[in-house]
Amino acid sequence: MTQEGILVVLSGPSGTGKGTVCKELLHHCPRLYYSISATTRQPRLGEVDGVNYHFVARGQFREMVEQDQLLEWAEVYGNYYGTPRKYVEAQLREGKDVVLEIDTQGAMKVKEKFPRGVFIFLLPPSLDELASRIWKRGTDSPDAIKRRLNSVNEEFQQIENYEYVVVNDNVQQAVKKIKAIIAAEKCRVVRSRQMIGSICSMQNM
Amino acid sequence: MTQEGILVVLSGPSGTGKGTVCKELLHHCPRLYYSISATTRQPRLGEVDGVNYHFVARGQFREMVEQDQLLEWAEVYGNYYGTPRKYVEAQLREGKDVVLEIDTQGAMKVKEKFPRGVFIFLLPPSLDELASRIWKRGTDSPDAIKRRLNSVNEEFQQIENYEYVVVNDNVQQAVKKIKAIIAAEKCRVVRSRQMIGSICSMQNM
Repeated sequence: MTQEGILVVLSGPSGTGKGTVCKELLHHCPRLYYSISATTRQPRLGEVDGVNYHFVARGQFREMVEQDQLLEWAEVYGNYYGTPRKYVEAQLREGKDVVLEIDTQGAMKVKEKFPRGVFIFLLPPSLDELASRIWKRGTDSPDAIKRRLNSVNEEFQQIENYEYVVVNDNVQQAVKKIKAIIAAEKCRVVRSRQMIGSICSMQNM
Repeated sequence: MTQEGILVVLSGPSGTGKGTVCKELLHHCPRLYYSISATTRQPRLGEVDGVNYHFVARGQFREMVEQDQLLEWAEVYGNYYGTPRKYVEAQLREGKDVVLEIDTQGAMKVKEKFPRGVFIFLLPPSLDELASRIWKRGTDSPDAIKRRLNSVNEEFQQIENYEYVVVNDNVQQAVKKIKAIIAAEKCRVVRSRQMIGSICSMQNM
Protein backbone atom coordinates (compact mmCIF):
# COMPACT_ATOMS: atom_id res chain seq x y z
CA MET A 1 0.00 0.00 0.00
CA THR A 2 1.25 3.47 -0.91
CA GLN A 3 0.88 6.64 1.15
CA GLU A 4 -2.15 8.50 -0.20
CA GLY A 5 -1.38 11.42 -2.50
CA ILE A 6 -2.16 14.99 -1.56
CA LEU A 7 -4.98 17.07 -3.00
CA VAL A 8 -3.65 20.60 -3.37
CA VAL A 9 -6.41 23.16 -3.77
CA LEU A 10 -5.05 26.39 -5.21
CA SER A 11 -7.57 29.16 -4.88
CA GLY A 12 -8.05 32.91 -4.56
CA PRO A 13 -9.89 35.79 -6.18
CA SER A 14 -9.73 36.16 -9.95
CA GLY A 15 -6.73 38.24 -11.00
CA THR A 16 -4.33 36.75 -8.44
CA GLY A 17 -2.70 34.62 -11.12
CA LYS A 18 -3.94 31.16 -10.09
CA GLY A 19 -3.72 29.92 -13.68
CA THR A 20 -0.14 31.09 -14.28
CA VAL A 21 1.07 29.81 -10.91
CA CYS A 22 -0.67 26.47 -11.43
CA LYS A 23 0.83 26.02 -14.90
CA GLU A 24 4.32 26.84 -13.62
CA LEU A 25 3.84 24.53 -10.63
CA LEU A 26 2.91 21.63 -12.91
CA HIS A 27 5.92 22.41 -15.07
CA HIS A 28 8.19 22.10 -12.00
CA CYS A 29 6.47 19.03 -10.52
CA PRO A 30 6.26 16.23 -13.09
CA ARG A 31 4.63 14.03 -10.46
CA LEU A 32 1.82 16.46 -9.74
CA TYR A 33 -1.39 15.89 -11.67
CA TYR A 34 -3.90 18.48 -12.80
CA SER A 35 -7.56 17.85 -12.18
CA ILE A 36 -9.45 18.60 -15.39
CA SER A 37 -12.90 20.13 -14.93
CA ALA A 38 -16.04 18.88 -16.64
CA THR A 39 -18.14 21.50 -18.42
CA THR A 40 -21.25 21.73 -20.55
CA ARG A 41 -20.01 24.74 -22.49
CA GLN A 42 -18.87 24.40 -26.08
CA PRO A 43 -15.13 23.91 -26.68
CA ARG A 44 -13.42 27.09 -27.81
CA LEU A 45 -11.07 27.07 -30.77
CA GLY A 46 -8.03 24.95 -29.91
CA GLU A 47 -9.49 23.45 -26.74
CA VAL A 48 -9.16 19.68 -26.57
CA ASP A 49 -11.55 17.33 -24.78
CA GLY A 50 -9.76 15.63 -21.87
CA VAL A 51 -6.95 18.20 -21.92
CA ASN A 52 -8.52 21.59 -21.26
CA TYR A 53 -11.87 20.27 -20.09
CA HIS A 54 -14.00 17.17 -20.17
CA PHE A 55 -16.74 18.43 -22.47
CA VAL A 56 -20.01 16.77 -21.54
CA ALA A 57 -23.68 17.14 -22.47
CA ARG A 58 -26.06 18.79 -19.98
CA GLY A 59 -27.86 15.50 -19.34
CA GLN A 60 -24.57 13.79 -18.56
CA PHE A 61 -23.57 16.62 -16.23
CA ARG A 62 -26.88 16.43 -14.35
CA GLU A 63 -26.35 12.69 -13.95
CA MET A 64 -22.88 13.34 -12.48
CA VAL A 65 -24.42 15.76 -9.99
CA GLU A 66 -27.20 13.32 -9.03
CA GLN A 67 -24.74 10.47 -8.57
CA ASP A 68 -22.45 12.62 -6.41
CA GLN A 69 -19.66 12.25 -8.94
CA LEU A 70 -18.49 15.86 -8.55
CA LEU A 71 -16.42 17.29 -5.71
CA GLU A 72 -18.00 20.65 -6.50
CA TRP A 73 -19.95 22.24 -9.32
CA ALA A 74 -21.37 25.63 -10.28
CA GLU A 75 -23.37 27.30 -12.99
CA VAL A 76 -21.65 30.23 -14.68
CA TYR A 77 -23.51 32.19 -17.37
CA GLY A 78 -25.78 29.25 -18.10
CA ASN A 79 -23.00 26.66 -18.35
CA TYR A 80 -22.10 24.05 -15.77
CA TYR A 81 -18.60 23.47 -14.50
CA GLY A 82 -17.53 20.81 -12.02
CA THR A 83 -14.67 18.72 -10.63
CA PRO A 84 -15.02 14.98 -11.29
CA ARG A 85 -14.41 13.09 -8.08
CA LYS A 86 -13.37 9.82 -9.72
CA TYR A 87 -10.14 11.04 -11.33
CA VAL A 88 -9.01 12.88 -8.21
CA GLU A 89 -9.67 9.93 -5.93
CA ALA A 90 -8.01 7.42 -8.28
CA GLN A 91 -4.81 9.48 -8.48
CA LEU A 92 -4.66 10.05 -4.72
CA ARG A 93 -5.17 6.34 -4.06
CA GLU A 94 -2.16 5.60 -6.26
CA GLY A 95 -0.11 8.00 -4.15
CA LYS A 96 -0.12 10.74 -6.76
CA ASP A 97 -0.64 14.38 -5.83
CA VAL A 98 -3.36 16.31 -7.59
CA VAL A 99 -3.74 20.06 -7.95
CA LEU A 100 -7.06 21.78 -8.34
CA GLU A 101 -7.15 25.41 -9.49
CA ILE A 102 -10.49 26.79 -8.43
CA ASP A 103 -12.38 29.84 -7.20
CA THR A 104 -12.95 30.37 -3.48
CA GLN A 105 -16.58 29.22 -3.56
CA GLY A 106 -15.64 25.95 -5.26
CA ALA A 107 -12.71 25.44 -2.90
CA MET A 108 -14.97 25.59 0.13
CA LYS A 109 -17.30 23.01 -1.43
CA VAL A 110 -14.32 20.72 -2.04
CA LYS A 111 -13.29 21.19 1.58
CA GLU A 112 -16.63 19.82 2.76
CA LYS A 113 -16.07 16.61 0.82
CA PHE A 114 -12.32 16.52 1.14
CA PRO A 115 -11.20 18.04 4.43
CA ARG A 116 -7.78 16.38 4.17
CA GLY A 117 -6.92 18.46 1.09
CA VAL A 118 -4.33 21.21 1.39
CA PHE A 119 -6.05 24.54 0.88
CA ILE A 120 -3.85 27.38 -0.35
CA PHE A 121 -5.12 30.92 -0.80
CA LEU A 122 -3.23 32.90 -3.41
CA LEU A 123 -3.02 36.63 -2.67
CA PRO A 124 -2.07 39.47 -5.00
CA PRO A 125 0.82 41.62 -3.68
CA SER A 126 -1.69 44.46 -3.20
CA LEU A 127 -5.24 45.40 -4.10
CA ASP A 128 -3.92 48.06 -6.47
CA GLU A 129 -1.99 45.36 -8.29
CA LEU A 130 -5.09 43.14 -8.43
CA ALA A 131 -7.18 45.97 -9.88
CA SER A 132 -4.49 46.73 -12.44
CA ARG A 133 -4.23 43.04 -13.46
CA ILE A 134 -7.98 42.84 -14.02
CA TRP A 135 -7.93 46.12 -16.01
CA LYS A 136 -5.03 44.93 -18.16
CA ARG A 137 -6.83 41.71 -18.95
CA GLY A 138 -9.38 43.90 -20.74
CA THR A 139 -12.13 41.28 -20.75
CA ASP A 140 -14.43 43.08 -18.30
CA SER A 141 -16.37 46.33 -18.51
CA PRO A 142 -15.55 49.04 -15.92
CA ASP A 143 -18.77 48.14 -14.08
CA ALA A 144 -17.92 44.44 -14.07
CA ILE A 145 -14.47 45.26 -12.74
CA LYS A 146 -15.95 47.31 -9.93
CA ARG A 147 -18.29 44.46 -9.00
CA ARG A 148 -15.40 42.02 -9.17
CA LEU A 149 -13.25 44.11 -6.84
CA ASN A 150 -16.11 44.46 -4.39
CA SER A 151 -16.58 40.70 -4.32
CA VAL A 152 -12.84 40.32 -3.71
CA ASN A 153 -13.34 41.77 -0.27
CA GLU A 154 -15.84 39.02 0.51
CA GLU A 155 -13.47 36.41 -0.85
CA PHE A 156 -10.71 37.69 1.43
CA GLN A 157 -12.92 36.85 4.40
CA GLN A 158 -12.61 33.23 3.28
CA ILE A 159 -8.87 33.14 4.03
CA GLU A 160 -9.67 31.95 7.54
CA ASN A 161 -10.90 28.67 6.05
CA TYR A 162 -7.55 28.02 4.39
CA GLU A 163 -4.42 26.61 5.97
CA TYR A 164 -1.91 28.46 3.83
CA VAL A 165 -1.62 31.82 2.17
CA VAL A 166 0.89 32.57 -0.59
CA VAL A 167 1.48 36.03 -2.03
CA ASN A 168 1.93 35.97 -5.78
CA ASP A 169 4.32 38.90 -6.12
CA ASN A 170 6.63 36.69 -8.14
CA VAL A 171 5.48 33.50 -9.88
CA GLN A 172 8.73 31.57 -9.26
CA GLN A 173 8.72 32.49 -5.57
CA ALA A 174 5.06 31.53 -5.24
CA VAL A 175 5.74 28.17 -6.93
CA LYS A 176 8.70 27.57 -4.62
CA LYS A 177 6.50 28.18 -1.59
CA ILE A 178 3.76 25.87 -2.86
CA LYS A 179 6.36 23.15 -3.51
CA ALA A 180 7.59 23.56 0.08
CA ILE A 181 4.01 23.29 1.34
CA ILE A 182 3.51 20.01 -0.56
CA ALA A 183 6.84 18.63 0.71
CA ALA A 184 6.00 19.63 4.28
CA GLU A 185 2.51 18.15 4.09
CA LYS A 186 4.08 14.81 3.10
CA CYS A 187 5.91 14.87 6.45
CA ARG A 188 2.74 15.41 8.48
CA VAL A 189 2.30 12.74 11.15
CA VAL A 190 -1.36 12.34 10.17
CA ARG A 191 -0.32 11.48 6.61
CA SER A 192 2.58 9.19 7.54
CA ARG A 193 0.94 6.59 9.77
CA GLN A 194 1.88 3.72 7.50
CA MET A 195 5.53 4.70 7.27
CA ILE A 196 5.67 5.33 11.02
CA GLY A 197 4.07 1.92 11.64
CA SER A 198 6.57 0.10 9.46
CA ILE A 199 9.56 1.74 11.15
CA CYS A 200 8.31 1.67 14.72
CA SER A 201 7.08 -1.90 14.72
CA MET A 202 9.19 -3.78 17.26
CA GLN A 203 9.18 -6.84 14.97
CA ASN A 204 12.13 -5.31 13.19
CA MET A 205 14.31 -5.82 16.23
CA MET B 1 6.27 45.04 13.39
CA THR B 2 7.81 41.88 11.95
CA GLN B 3 6.14 38.49 11.57
CA GLU B 4 7.15 36.42 14.60
CA GLY B 5 9.90 33.88 13.97
CA ILE B 6 9.29 30.16 14.18
CA LEU B 7 10.47 27.90 16.98
CA VAL B 8 11.51 24.62 15.37
CA VAL B 9 11.73 21.78 17.88
CA LEU B 10 13.77 18.92 16.49
CA SER B 11 13.37 15.84 18.59
CA GLY B 12 13.45 12.05 18.59
CA PRO B 13 15.06 9.12 20.39
CA SER B 14 18.82 9.15 20.92
CA GLY B 15 20.62 7.60 17.96
CA THR B 16 18.38 9.12 15.29
CA GLY B 17 21.00 11.69 14.43
CA LYS B 18 19.35 14.84 15.81
CA GLY B 19 22.73 16.46 16.40
CA THR B 20 24.08 15.84 12.91
CA VAL B 21 20.85 16.91 11.21
CA CYS B 22 20.63 20.05 13.36
CA LYS B 23 24.23 21.02 12.60
CA GLU B 24 23.69 20.53 8.87
CA LEU B 25 20.40 22.44 9.01
CA LEU B 26 22.10 25.41 10.68
CA HIS B 27 24.82 25.25 8.04
CA HIS B 28 22.17 25.53 5.29
CA CYS B 29 20.06 28.18 7.00
CA PRO B 30 22.18 31.19 7.99
CA ARG B 31 19.04 32.89 9.33
CA LEU B 32 18.16 30.05 11.68
CA TYR B 33 19.41 30.41 15.24
CA TYR B 34 20.42 27.65 17.62
CA SER B 35 19.09 27.74 21.14
CA ILE B 36 21.98 27.08 23.52
CA SER B 37 21.13 25.09 26.65
CA ALA B 38 22.08 26.08 30.16
CA THR B 39 23.77 23.42 32.28
CA THR B 40 25.34 23.01 35.69
CA ARG B 41 27.82 20.40 34.54
CA GLN B 42 31.50 21.23 34.14
CA PRO B 43 32.67 22.27 30.65
CA ARG B 44 34.47 19.44 28.83
CA LEU B 45 37.77 20.08 27.11
CA GLY B 46 37.20 22.45 24.20
CA GLU B 47 33.67 23.44 25.19
CA VAL B 48 33.09 27.18 25.23
CA ASP B 49 30.63 29.01 27.45
CA GLY B 50 27.90 30.63 25.36
CA VAL B 51 28.75 28.44 22.35
CA ASN B 52 28.24 24.83 23.40
CA TYR B 53 26.35 25.60 26.61
CA HIS B 54 25.68 28.39 29.01
CA PHE B 55 27.61 27.03 32.00
CA VAL B 56 25.92 28.16 35.20
CA ALA B 57 26.23 27.43 38.92
CA ARG B 58 23.59 25.25 40.60
CA GLY B 59 22.24 28.19 42.57
CA GLN B 60 21.85 30.23 39.42
CA PHE B 61 20.08 27.33 37.69
CA ARG B 62 17.65 26.91 40.59
CA GLU B 63 16.91 30.62 40.38
CA MET B 64 16.15 30.27 36.66
CA VAL B 65 13.74 27.44 37.43
CA GLU B 66 12.03 29.38 40.21
CA GLN B 67 11.66 32.48 38.04
CA ASP B 68 10.21 30.43 35.15
CA GLN B 69 13.13 31.39 32.96
CA LEU B 70 13.40 27.94 31.36
CA LEU B 71 11.16 26.51 28.66
CA GLU B 72 12.06 23.06 29.99
CA TRP B 73 14.67 21.54 32.23
CA ALA B 74 15.77 18.12 33.45
CA GLU B 75 18.29 16.47 35.75
CA VAL B 76 20.59 13.96 34.07
CA TYR B 77 23.12 12.07 36.21
CA GLY B 78 23.08 14.78 38.86
CA ASN B 79 23.50 17.69 36.47
CA TYR B 80 20.84 20.13 35.39
CA TYR B 81 20.11 21.03 31.77
CA GLY B 82 17.55 23.54 30.54
CA THR B 83 16.44 25.82 27.71
CA PRO B 84 16.56 29.53 28.58
CA ARG B 85 13.30 31.14 27.58
CA LYS B 86 14.68 34.68 27.21
CA TYR B 87 16.96 34.04 24.23
CA VAL B 88 14.33 32.05 22.35
CA GLU B 89 11.63 34.64 22.88
CA ALA B 90 13.88 37.56 21.96
CA GLN B 91 14.91 35.97 18.65
CA LEU B 92 11.33 35.04 17.73
CA ARG B 93 10.13 38.55 18.51
CA GLU B 94 12.72 39.90 16.08
CA GLY B 95 11.31 37.59 13.41
CA LYS B 96 14.22 35.15 13.61
CA ASP B 97 13.66 31.40 13.56
CA VAL B 98 15.14 29.33 16.36
CA VAL B 99 15.89 25.61 16.38
CA LEU B 100 15.91 23.53 19.52
CA GLU B 101 17.47 20.06 19.45
CA ILE B 102 16.03 18.17 22.36
CA ASP B 103 14.87 14.78 23.66
CA THR B 104 11.20 13.81 23.46
CA GLN B 105 10.52 14.49 27.13
CA GLY B 106 11.93 18.01 26.88
CA ALA B 107 10.08 18.65 23.62
CA MET B 108 6.74 17.92 25.25
CA LYS B 109 7.53 20.31 28.09
CA VAL B 110 8.37 23.01 25.53
CA LYS B 111 5.07 22.31 23.80
CA GLU B 112 3.16 23.14 26.99
CA LYS B 113 4.76 26.56 27.14
CA PHE B 114 5.09 27.09 23.42
CA PRO B 115 2.25 25.39 21.56
CA ARG B 116 2.88 27.48 18.43
CA GLY B 117 6.30 25.86 17.96
CA VAL B 118 6.82 23.45 15.07
CA PHE B 119 7.42 19.99 16.50
CA ILE B 120 9.38 17.60 14.29
CA PHE B 121 10.03 13.98 15.25
CA LEU B 122 13.17 12.55 13.67
CA LEU B 123 12.94 8.82 12.96
CA PRO B 124 15.74 6.37 12.16
CA PRO B 125 15.23 4.49 8.85
CA SER B 126 14.68 1.31 10.91
CA LEU B 127 15.05 0.02 14.43
CA ASP B 128 17.92 -2.20 13.30
CA GLU B 129 19.70 0.90 12.05
CA LEU B 130 19.02 2.71 15.34
CA ALA B 131 20.42 -0.22 17.35
CA SER B 132 23.48 -0.35 15.14
CA ARG B 133 24.08 3.40 15.47
CA ILE B 134 23.94 3.19 19.26
CA TRP B 135 26.29 0.16 19.23
CA LYS B 136 28.76 1.91 16.95
CA ARG B 137 28.81 4.94 19.20
CA GLY B 138 30.38 2.63 21.77
CA THR B 139 29.58 4.84 24.75
CA ASP B 140 27.00 2.52 26.32
CA SER B 141 27.25 -0.94 27.89
CA PRO B 142 25.18 -3.73 26.32
CA ASP B 143 22.71 -3.44 29.21
CA ALA B 144 22.42 0.32 28.79
CA ILE B 145 21.83 -0.17 25.05
CA LYS B 146 19.06 -2.67 25.76
CA ARG B 147 17.40 -0.24 28.18
CA ARG B 148 17.80 2.56 25.67
CA LEU B 149 16.13 0.54 22.90
CA ASN B 150 13.28 -0.39 25.21
CA SER B 151 12.68 3.24 26.06
CA VAL B 152 12.70 4.03 22.33
CA ASN B 153 9.43 2.19 22.02
CA GLU B 154 7.88 4.50 24.61
CA GLU B 155 9.30 7.51 22.82
CA PHE B 156 7.71 6.36 19.57
CA GLN B 157 4.32 6.63 21.26
CA GLN B 158 5.03 10.34 21.56
CA ILE B 159 4.94 10.83 17.76
CA GLU B 160 1.21 11.55 18.01
CA ASN B 161 2.04 14.78 19.83
CA TYR B 162 4.17 16.00 16.95
CA GLU B 163 3.00 17.64 13.73
CA TYR B 164 5.76 16.36 11.50
CA VAL B 165 7.87 13.24 11.17
CA VAL B 166 11.09 13.10 9.15
CA VAL B 167 13.04 9.91 8.49
CA ASN B 168 16.77 10.41 8.77
CA ASP B 169 17.89 7.87 6.20
CA ASN B 170 19.99 10.55 4.53
CA VAL B 171 21.08 13.71 6.32
CA GLN B 172 20.79 15.96 3.23
CA GLN B 173 17.30 14.69 2.45
CA ALA B 174 16.22 15.13 6.07
CA VAL B 175 17.57 18.70 6.08
CA LYS B 176 15.74 19.43 2.81
CA LYS B 177 12.49 18.25 4.33
CA ILE B 178 12.95 20.31 7.49
CA LYS B 179 13.72 23.39 5.36
CA ALA B 180 10.48 22.77 3.45
CA ILE B 181 8.58 22.45 6.73
CA ILE B 182 9.94 25.82 7.91
CA ALA B 183 9.11 27.47 4.56
CA ALA B 184 5.60 26.00 4.62
CA GLU B 185 4.98 27.05 8.21
CA LYS B 186 5.81 30.63 7.21
CA CYS B 187 2.86 30.46 4.79
CA ARG B 188 0.39 29.33 7.45
CA VAL B 189 -2.62 31.62 7.65
CA VAL B 190 -2.36 31.66 11.45
CA ARG B 191 1.19 33.03 11.21
CA SER B 192 0.49 35.53 8.43
CA ARG B 193 -2.31 37.67 9.88
CA GLN B 194 -0.30 40.85 9.70
CA MET B 195 0.70 40.36 6.07
CA ILE B 196 -2.86 39.37 5.17
CA GLY B 197 -4.18 42.45 6.95
CA SER B 198 -1.83 44.78 5.11
CA ILE B 199 -2.76 43.36 1.70
CA CYS B 200 -6.48 42.90 2.25
CA SER B 201 -7.15 46.27 3.84
CA MET B 202 -9.49 48.12 1.49
CA GLN B 203 -7.64 51.36 2.26
CA ASN B 204 -5.21 50.40 -0.48
CA MET B 205 -7.89 50.85 -3.11
